[in-house]
Amino acid sequence: MADSNSLEALVQALRRLPGVGVKSASRMAFHLLQHDREGAQMLSRALHQAAGTVRHCSQCHTFTDSEVCATCLDPQRDGTKLCVVETPADQSAVERTSAYRGLYFVLMGKLSPLDGIGPRDIGLQKLFDRATGGTVQEVILATNFTAEGEATAHVIGEALKARGLQVTRLARGVPAGSELEYVDLGTIAHALVDRR
Amino acid sequence: MADSNSLEALVQALRRLPGVGVKSASRMAFHLLQHDREGAQMLSRALHQAAGTVRHCSQCHTFTDSEVCATCLDPQRDGTKLCVVETPADQSAVERTSAYRGLYFVLMGKLSPLDGIGPRDIGLQKLFDRATGGTVQEVILATNFTAEGEATAHVIGEALKARGLQVTRLARGVPAGSELEYVDLGTIAHALVDRR
Repeated sequence: MADSNSLEALVQALRRLPGVGVKSASRMAFHLLQHDREGAQMLSRALHQAAGTVRHCSQCHTFTDSEVCATCLDPQRDGTKLCVVETPADQSAVERTSAYRGLYFVLMGKLSPLDGIGPRDIGLQKLFDRATGGTVQEVILATNFTAEGEATAHVIGEALKARGLQVTRLARGVPAGSELEYVDLGTIAHALVDRR
Repeated sequence: MADSNSLEALVQALRRLPGVGVKSASRMAFHLLQHDREGAQMLSRALHQAAGTVRHCSQCHTFTDSEVCATCLDPQRDGTKLCVVETPADQSAVERTSAYRGLYFVLMGKLSPLDGIGPRDIGLQKLFDRATGGTVQEVILATNFTAEGEATAHVIGEALKARGLQVTRLARGVPAGSELEYVDLGTIAHALVDRR
């Protein structure tokens, strides 16, 4: 697009973002250069800063700027409960409910044999060490309810049960605010079996 | 998301990209930090470089790293024809056809009263000066066939005709490879009127 090597390089670099193809990348580059150069510089600095400073919490594996994240350091947290989630975004969703005051372990992914992601890539050994350290009494599996998330939960659950820990899974059921007519049959079937 | 100020700043900066909301921005930040830090640094450098060096060609207004772009400098180009497009991406689309060997004027936008974009914002005076400079004999309006693109073409066309120039518009009609059954009625009506 146009006669500019630095523009071409920008379009190529924007394509490294997930879900961004050549058309979106061109549109983004056009917008930044034509209407928001300040935004471009701000994004440049934020990328450089984050790529240099963000690391993983040594306890729970989530993104943090420090050695240990604020959640793991919080003395108000109930250290006997450990909630296992796939990503920081999932952790954030659980946090927003205010219904959980225990600690977390963030897998930073899920088991995905087709993509070559095995137990080592999502730090399962670290999770097992943490869970069997003596403090944790209950591990709550909050991976996603997708095929890969379920498989990940199954693998972790079996391994932890074998180590004598109490393992629970988020309840499956009808989402709040939904009408039965529009809920898929698998969900209704699960909600029937798990009725209380 | 998570306990990191630099991550939070990155998510906010990514939201400056067009079409990127908070969920997409979080997903992009997660991907870059977890799987592609090299890509993050590359994008950071490309943004900084482009925001600092890319400017507008003094002749045709497109993006370039130099004073005048390569297309405007090309002596093989037919300087009597001037094709008016909205963006560098549109210019690139016309170029790829290899059906046009004249010069360009890139508006870098379109008239859009609702967004407060008037003739001054898209450099119409510069276009009029260029078109009436003596060399240009025909101005080909290749703005998009949207409401705003048509309005822009109309305004430019009227102004240039008043200055005694020959003004043409890209032909409207049935797209190559399409079946009439699936072409919208407005397009078929135009194709009938403009039949040849």
